[in-house]
Amino acid sequence: MRPLFIRRARQLVTLAGSSAAPLVREKMNDLQIIENGSVWIERGVIIAVGPDDELAHRFADRIGEADVIDARGKTVTPGLIDPHTHLVYAGSREHEWTMRLRGATYMEIMNAGGGIHATTKATREASEEMLYEESKRRLDLFLLHGVTTVEAKSGYGLSFEGEIKQLEVAKRLHDTHPVDVVSTFLGAHAVPPEWKDDRDGYIRLIMEVMIPEVSRRGLAEFNDVFCERGVFTPDEARRILEAGKAHGLTPKIHADEIEPYGGAELAAEVGAISADHLLRASDEGLRRMAERGVIGVLLPGTAFFLMTQAADARRLIDNGVPVALATDCNPGSSPTVSLPLVMSLACLHMRMTPAEALAAATINAAHAIGRSHVIGSLEPGKKADLAIFNAANYMQIMYYYGVNHTEMVIKGGKIVVNEGKVCI
Amino acid sequence: MRPLFIRRARQLVTLAGSSAAPLVREKMNDLQIIENGSVWIERGVIIAVGPDDELAHRFADRIGEADVIDARGKTVTPGLIDPHTHLVYAGSREHEWTMRLRGATYMEIMNAGGGIHATTKATREASEEMLYEESKRRLDLFLLHGVTTVEAKSGYGLSFEGEIKQLEVAKRLHDTHPVDVVSTFLGAHAVPPEWKDDRDGYIRLIMEVMIPEVSRRGLAEFNDVFCERGVFTPDEARRILEAGKAHGLTPKIHADEIEPYGGAELAAEVGAISADHLLRASDEGLRRMAERGVIGVLLPGTAFFLMTQAADARRLIDNGVPVALATDCNPGSSPTVSLPLVMSLACLHMRMTPAEALAAATINAAHAIGRSHVIGSLEPGKKADLAIFNAANYMQIMYYYGVNHTEMVIKGGKIVVNEGKVCI
Ligand SMILES: [Zn+2]
Ligand SMILES: [Zn+2]
Repeated sequence: MRPLFIRRARQLVTLAGSSAAPLVREKMNDLQIIENGSVWIERGVIIAVGPDDELAHRFADRIGEADVIDARGKTVTPGLIDPHTHLVYAGSREHEWTMRLRGATYMEIMNAGGGIHATTKATREASEEMLYEESKRRLDLFLLHGVTTVEAKSGYGLSFEGEIKQLEVAKRLHDTHPVDVVSTFLGAHAVPPEWKDDRDGYIRLIMEVMIPEVSRRGLAEFNDVFCERGVFTPDEARRILEAGKAHGLTPKIHADEIEPYGGAELAAEVGAISADHLLRASDEGLRRMAERGVIGVLLPGTAFFLMTQAADARRLIDNGVPVALATDCNPGSSPTVSLPLVMSLACLHMRMTPAEALAAATINAAHAIGRSHVIGSLEPGKKADLAIFNAANYMQIMYYYGVNHTEMVIKGGKIVVNEGKVCI
Repeated sequence: MRPLFIRRARQLVTLAGSSAAPLVREKMNDLQIIENGSVWIERGVIIAVGPDDELAHRFADRIGEADVIDARGKTVTPGLIDPHTHLVYAGSREHEWTMRLRGATYMEIMNAGGGIHATTKATREASEEMLYEESKRRLDLFLLHGVTTVEAKSGYGLSFEGEIKQLEVAKRLHDTHPVDVVSTFLGAHAVPPEWKDDRDGYIRLIMEVMIPEVSRRGLAEFNDVFCERGVFTPDEARRILEAGKAHGLTPKIHADEIEPYGGAELAAEVGAISADHLLRASDEGLRRMAERGVIGVLLPGTAFFLMTQAADARRLIDNGVPVALATDCNPGSSPTVSLPLVMSLACLHMRMTPAEALAAATINAAHAIGRSHVIGSLEPGKKADLAIFNAANYMQIMYYYGVNHTEMVIKGGKIVVNEGKVCI
C-alpha cells in the first residue's frame, strides 16, 4: 500500500487535541483549522498533519512513491461519525406518513398496524441475507455522505433470535463494509406484543438471557434502554443497564424525549457514556451529566421529522454537557442518512454554530461511542478516516443545505468514495 | 436519434390531464399513476405513455431500434420544475450565517456589509464568464436533483448593465445547458444604494429604460417586483408591472412575505401568472387569486432557512389557489438547489401531502412559468423531460429526507444524468 498524501486543502479541519476529553462550551468552536493543509498517511494511519510546505519539506524524498490527492479549494475533515442509528431493519413505512401529516397520533398509527411493531414484524420476518442487503444499501449512502463510522442498535427483533440476528448482521456489515459499525444492544427498545401481559418476564429475558449471550459472543459494546413513560421506567432501565455493566456492556440511554422522566439523571448515576434525545431533560439532570462527562447525543432530524421542537442544545452547552449529533436513522421517526443535513438542522433548529455542529459530528461523536483515541480528529497516530467536501470552508457544508457536498472519502487510508461514488 | 423506451417503472407518475388548468384543492392528490408503466419517446417528444404490456404490444416491431431503460423498482416522474430561483449570482455569504444564528437582525447584517447588497456588489464586479461558470455549477446540481427547468430572476445587478448582464448569462445558460432556463426580469428587487435618495428615479429607470430594452432583446418573459414594506409599495409595484405588460412581460410578484401588504390582491388585479412567498397574504387576497387563477408559489426552504413559520399552504389549497413549490435558490435566504428537500419541507412544515408536493413541483410549477402545454406532465406530445428516482414510490422521494434519490434524468429525450452523474 503506497503512502497517501492529501495536499493543500483550503481548510483542513483537524479538531486536534481533544482525544482525551470531549469539547465543551466555547471550546466546541475551536476546530483547529489549518489553511492550505496537508496530511501524510501510511498503512491506514495518519503520520503527519500540517501546512503543505511543512509536509512537502518533511516528505520531500518520498512524495514520488505516494498517491497524491489534490485538495485545493476543498474542505477536508475527519470522517463524520454517527453515534446513534437504528441501521439494521427491514421494511418501509412511508405509508404511515400521510396519516401523520393529516394529524393522526402515534397511537392511531400503531393501531392501524404501523409504528415500531410494523418494523419489528418486517425485521423478524426478513432473512439474514435480506436484512444484510437492505442495511448495506443504507451504509453505502452513509458513506456517500461522508460518514465513516456509525453506531447501530438492535431493538427491532425484541426476541432472543431477532436481536441476535440484527446484531449479527451489524457485525457482518462491520466486517465487510468500509464503514465501521459499532454495535449497541437495545433489547429494551419496546415490550413486544407477546410479552404485553408479562413485562417483567421480558425484562428478565433481556437481563438473564439476551445480555449474557450478546456479551459472550462479543456482539455489542453498549447496552441501551428506551426510557420513557409507557416504555421502560427509570427503575427498569437501571436494572437493565446494571445487568449490562455486569457483563461488560457500557450503558447508553434514550432519555427524556417526550417528558422529563429522570433519564439524564439515570445516565449520570449509572455512568452511561451517552444520553440521547434529551428534549425534556431537567436542569439537574444536565448538571449531573456534565459532572460525569456523559455525552448528550442530540437528534434534530427526529424532531424535524416528527414536527416537534428540537432539543435545547444551547442549554446543554451552557451547562457544560459535551454535545454530539446523530441522524437517529430509522424507518419511522428519522428516515435519513444525511448527517450533513442533521448539522444544518442543528444550526437552524437548535442554534448551534456551524463549528459546534461539526465538532459534535466528529470528535464528540467519537467520544460518544468510546472511539476518541482512534477516530474523530486528524492527528498523527489516528486512523486515516477523512472526508473531502466540495466546499470552500466547513460552513458551506451546512450552509448550502440539503445538498451532499461530499466528494471523496478516505477510510483507513483507502479511497472508498470518489467523485461522489462508492469505489471499493 | 434512436427512440427511447423507458420500461416497467414501479410507479410512473404522469400527472396527465392538467395542461389547460392547474390542479387545485383535492385534485392535487390525483397524480395519475401507472403501475409497471412505460414511456415511448421519439425525437425528444413523448409519443406514448401507458402500462408496459400495452406499449410493448404497440411498438413490438420497433423495440429493436430503441434504447431501452429498465425502470423496474423505480419511480418515474415528469422532470421537476423550479418556478422561482435567483440562479445567477456571484459570491457566497455563509459568513453572515453565524451572526444570524446568534440573533443578529437582517439590518445588522446589512450594516456589517452583508445581505442583498453584498451579493449585488459581487455580481456587479463578476465578469460575465465568472458569473456563467458559477451559475452553471448550480445548474448542474439542479439537474442532479431531478430538475429539468428553472425560472431564473435578475435582480442582483440593479443597474442597466448589471441587469442585462445577469439576463444574458441566464440566456447563455439556457442555450448551452440541458436545463431550460426561463428568465424573469427583477430590476425591482431592491433600490440600490446609489438611488437611495431618488427612488422614483430608479423606478423610472426600470420602467423607461430597462423594461423596454429587456423586452426588445427578448431577455425575459416575466417581470417581477419585490413588493414589501421598505422595498417597493403596492402602488410602485403596480406601475412597474403595468409597464412590463405594455412591453409584453407577464407579471409575477414577491408578495406578502413579511406582512400583509396587498401583494396577493395586486397579483389578481394585474393578472399576474404567480404570486410568490405569501406567508402573510390576506384571505381576501387569496380569494381573488383563486378567482383569477393566479398560482401561489410557496417557498418553504426560505422560511426554514430564515427560521420563521412557513406559509399556510392548507389555507391556500382550501381557498382554491393552485399551489406550486420552488427552492427560491439564492445566496442569502435559501442557499439550496434541492427541490426534493423543498418537497419534504412542504410536507413537514406546511402539511401538504406528498402527492400535493409533487403536483406542486411539476404540473403546477409548469403553470407558474407558462409552460404547462410543454412540460410538467407525461403525456403524448409533451417534451420528454423525465426524472427517474431510486424509490419504490413517489412518497419515498420525500420521506427518506435530505438524500437525493435522483438516479437518471432525461431531458428532451436525451439521458443527461446517469447513476447520479451529469453526462452531457
Ligand atoms: Zn434511537
Ligand atoms: Zn425570490
